Amino acid sequence: MKWKRSERLVDMTRYLLESPHELIPLTKFSERYESAKSSISEDLTIIKATFEETGAGKLVTVTGAAGGVKFIPKMGDLEVREVISLLMDELGHSDRLLPGGYLFMADLLGNPYIMDCVGKVFASRFSDTEIDVIMTVATKGIPIAHAIARHLNVPVVIVRRDSKVTEGSTVSINYVSGSTRRIQTMMLSKRSMKSGQKVLITDDFMKAGGTMVGMKHLLEEFGCELAGTAVLVEAEHHEEVILDNYSSLVKLLSVNEKNRTIVLSEGNYFLEGGK
Amino acid sequence: MKWKRSERLVDMTRYLLESPHELIPLTKFSERYESAKSSISEDLTIIKATFEETGAGKLVTVTGAAGGVKFIPKMGDLEVREVISLLMDELGHSDRLLPGGYLFMADLLGNPYIMDCVGKVFASRFSDTEIDVIMTVATKGIPIAHAIARHLNVPVVIVRRDSKVTEGSTVSINYVSGSTRRIQTMMLSKRSMKSGQKVLITDDFMKAGGTMVGMKHLLEEFGCELAGTAVLVEAEHHEEVILDNYSSLVKLLSVNEKNRTIVLSEGNYFLEGGK
Repeated sequence: MKWKRSERLVDMTRYLLESPHELIPLTKFSERYESAKSSISEDLTIIKATFEETGAGKLVTVTGAAGGVKFIPKMGDLEVREVISLLMDELGHSDRLLPGGYLFMADLLGNPYIMDCVGKVFASRFSDTEIDVIMTVATKGIPIAHAIARHLNVPVVIVRRDSKVTEGSTVSINYVSGSTRRIQTMMLSKRSMKSGQKVLITDDFMKAGGTMVGMKHLLEEFGCELAGTAVLVEAEHHEEVILDNYSSLVKLLSVNEKNRTIVLSEGNYFLEGGK
Repeated sequence: MKWKRSERLVDMTRYLLESPHELIPLTKFSERYESAKSSISEDLTIIKATFEETGAGKLVTVTGAAGGVKFIPKMGDLEVREVISLLMDELGHSDRLLPGGYLFMADLLGNPYIMDCVGKVFASRFSDTEIDVIMTVATKGIPIAHAIARHLNVPVVIVRRDSKVTEGSTVSINYVSGSTRRIQTMMLSKRSMKSGQKVLITDDFMKAGGTMVGMKHLLEEFGCELAGTAVLVEAEHHEEVILDNYSSLVKLLSVNEKNRTIVLSEGNYFLEGGK
């Protein structure tokens, strides 16, 4: 195949989108397309300008012998606000109200388009943070963790509340649930993480933050470091949140089971601490 | 912004890749780029040829008033074999062997690149099958289900073994685990599926197929129909597999705990029944 510029642009765009946060040497492209590096550079200039104009992300060029190009997914504030407003529209429906004032969210967490948006938002938020691993607790945080992971190009590890033979040996901790004050256990496969790794923790819902703090203690048991916390929905509550830094997209201010109303606001994504 | 062809090609490629299995009217593109439909058609011809040449997938054009263009992720056999061979290389390492002859796979299931490949393989396999929902059982099937779902553009529903208040009311069934012959329970939120939907079931590992058959019975309780079964790894075993049609990528033929050997082969993806 003899590659024309138009075909190179299509294929390179796909290649870059499928390889976020990966440094691609220019020689890789010049070999693939049997084209001079100068032509490849011109192609990349077009892609870079278009990505920036449309809010797809940044193309970062690293010069020198070990150089190349890297695609960093990065949404603009406008696009982030659109995602948050989509989430608030969806979450505000009164038929989501469950007994006890809980919200039904399984359909949102099962929607691949919405999860991809959420993943891109948090990947944008943490695009300049060094992250080696994303950690979540089974079950509902898994789609969010994987959506972020794909855009940051890092692995996901899953904390469980029960031990399974397929996990091999595990490290487990006891922690106190923030809202119910009950003692619970969580565990993680010993071979999931290496000492010194930087960990982003994520979950679908946070009230007092007990589960998040549990994950923080667990990753410390591995000699790892907390790099950030990403929460889809945080709930207003009377006690203090026991976690300092986190970024949330939506805040659940109140629910009224009798009148079946749900009051939401934007999370702290755009505020100090969240951003 | 005045769009040049080169910029349109980059942006349209991204748009199509992010909207698989979605019919996009040409007017959408001609409005976005303020360009004549004839120019858009020429752009799409270039993208179509490049996607087909590189094994990215197909662009299907639907003519008429309700027409448009649809991107169908479709891997070639060569690319599928590369994914299968990558999986076999990874799974064959003797340090995956766990007591009882189980294989540690959490790292593969937590790798977003590998999950994306697996998702694309199964999305290719079922690209011509009518599928409304992907169903899996917590916890390990979730990354696979979401990876397939993103490429097929359909929602994921997650069957659980325990009931949680955040699921709302549930439908539950008892089933007999294929290999241990124990009676187990699985349940699914009542509002997860509508009667008449076509369901693809998926999981990371299948031995006798008991869990899969349990999911089949559960979806029948919802008045839904089994559309297909996708399995990452199937294990050889003496009794008959109690599920007729399934597609697997890798087959675990035998493990020897003493010598620490793992014998694998290709799954049935390319065989009658699997394909």
